[in-house]
Amino acid sequence: MILFGIDIGGTTIKIGAFQEDKTLLSNWEIKTQPQNLFNDLVDSVKSYLELEHISFAEVFGFGLGIPGIVKNGIAISCVNLGWENVNIKEELEKALGFSTHVIVLNDANMAAFGEASFCKQEVESAVFLTLGTGVGGGIMIHHEIVEGSNGLGGELGHIPLDTIYNFPCSCGLRGCLETLASSRGMIKLAHHFKNEISTQITINEALSAKDIIDGAKHKDPLAMKVFETACSALARAMAGLAVIINPDTFIIGGGISNAGEFLLTAVQNEYKKVCIKQAQSIPIYLAKLKNNAGIYGACAYLIQKKIEVEKNGKC
Amino acid sequence: MILFGIDIGGTTIKIGAFQEDKTLLSNWEIKTQPQNLFNDLVDSVKSYLELEHISFAEVFGFGLGIPGIVKNGIAISCVNLGWENVNIKEELEKALGFSTHVIVLNDANMAAFGEASFCKQEVESAVFLTLGTGVGGGIMIHHEIVEGSNGLGGELGHIPLDTIYNFPCSCGLRGCLETLASSRGMIKLAHHFKNEISTQITINEALSAKDIIDGAKHKDPLAMKVFETACSALARAMAGLAVIINPDTFIIGGGISNAGEFLLTAVQNEYKKVCIKQAQSIPIYLAKLKNNAGIYGACAYLIQKKIEVEKNGKC
Repeated sequence: MILFGIDIGGTTIKIGAFQEDKTLLSNWEIKTQPQNLFNDLVDSVKSYLELEHISFAEVFGFGLGIPGIVKNGIAISCVNLGWENVNIKEELEKALGFSTHVIVLNDANMAAFGEASFCKQEVESAVFLTLGTGVGGGIMIHHEIVEGSNGLGGELGHIPLDTIYNFPCSCGLRGCLETLASSRGMIKLAHHFKNEISTQITINEALSAKDIIDGAKHKDPLAMKVFETACSALARAMAGLAVIINPDTFIIGGGISNAGEFLLTAVQNEYKKVCIKQAQSIPIYLAKLKNNAGIYGACAYLIQKKIEVEKNGKC
Repeated sequence: MILFGIDIGGTTIKIGAFQEDKTLLSNWEIKTQPQNLFNDLVDSVKSYLELEHISFAEVFGFGLGIPGIVKNGIAISCVNLGWENVNIKEELEKALGFSTHVIVLNDANMAAFGEASFCKQEVESAVFLTLGTGVGGGIMIHHEIVEGSNGLGGELGHIPLDTIYNFPCSCGLRGCLETLASSRGMIKLAHHFKNEISTQITINEALSAKDIIDGAKHKDPLAMKVFETACSALARAMAGLAVIINPDTFIIGGGISNAGEFLLTAVQNEYKKVCIKQAQSIPIYLAKLKNNAGIYGACAYLIQKKIEVEKNGKC
């Protein structure tokens, strides 16, 4: 059987064709055109199948990661695509012209499932944190993604965390995790400290999180302060998650995680300082699937559902 | 079939005999004697069965809540009882003389399952917070308790929360939720504010959380400040849980919850202030089973396991 893992983004759609053993056969991208998205997707999949002489009967189904709030297969709100309450399975099947297995999750949740499924160690629970422009995340417990009552499960960027800097957040509140532990947050911190702490970095409109991390690597005082503040905020959130979910592992991804071991070591050190003794041993890994986490996650989740379907089918 | 729900405490063991429809047939307590606990428990259960002319063949099994860290049926650490790595099922079956169905959870987790199962509305996920001398809790997701990697799932009292007062916590860290939102925390806050804020309350060694709550009800300035600080800390933790777990409901129990609607209204108001817009509608309830939550939870969890056993048995 063939499974399609699909990661829908604001500008491109990533498509992966997988075997049942989770081997990636082929992956490619198409442009996201919200008004014709499902037809474009189906056309692209059909072209691939024709090219590879694979019949539709061999397709088990589709897993899709959606950039918005998702609950029970419905994209409740998806600002980038202009969607509200879109039933993904229905739309995809309409474009396909027949019914198939379809699973849908929020994109960060799907990436979380991907990273957890392909983690260094076998895990049944994981907390995935993506540090990018903002902070996103996903939570797996008992091998299932926590979608939540309002589809907000794993929206870890909005954990209330900080009462010192109290920066406004995109959600309308203040002091959320992502106001410090994201690239936007780090840039804001750099501006906040620029009159207090010496620096060789040019703090202007062009400043990036990469500039700050490079500065911290070279022991620039301001960059170090910003980087430590961001890592400390992340570690405090993780210390909370360690007594809430108490996961088998933490996985850190997103653009900032390209800082690699430098970031990992800093987060591990900060985490040990603020975490309850009994949970200090929870391993922290860097994400390894990166931009492909979504399509791999969709494949892995689809296979898990396939096994459940087969099991229930036998009952 | 008969099911026994058992809540083991440091001084007494609560025992409930239930029908399969979760009707409580009888409940009673025995003294906790750690050195002879399983034999005492079995003797007590046997006496009940003899008195009621019920044979052992009619007993489906036992659910037990344990005051310590529990993982996969093992009491990893249980300071009050002097236990370390005790296999509860093995010990109980040794005392019984035959094998039976046994499920074991940490006591707060079992109470959480009880309160969630008998909640006003049908829920598949819930966060239960107990406000007592400390703060405990339990989390249900997809109808399962989150035990966690180290058995620390739902240890909500140790969410890092506060950087203002920074009171030391029993866990060795500072600023955990329970340093503010517990009776111990409220008393500490009262002492902290006594030279700053006027009060009619006597702030001495005998001060209780009830004195503070009664004072707040009567608009005593210091008591109001303490009560608001505790409720605000709790609400911030809940706002975090709303984007982590995003549960169907919050349930608040423990001694402090005897303040009833006065507490509930304050927590609801504080929660709405600090919570992300999309999660403001999550209902917050007061616990209703109170001291019997543990035995009811054990009964409900056992019945859920019975259904799973029967379903798997048919496969």
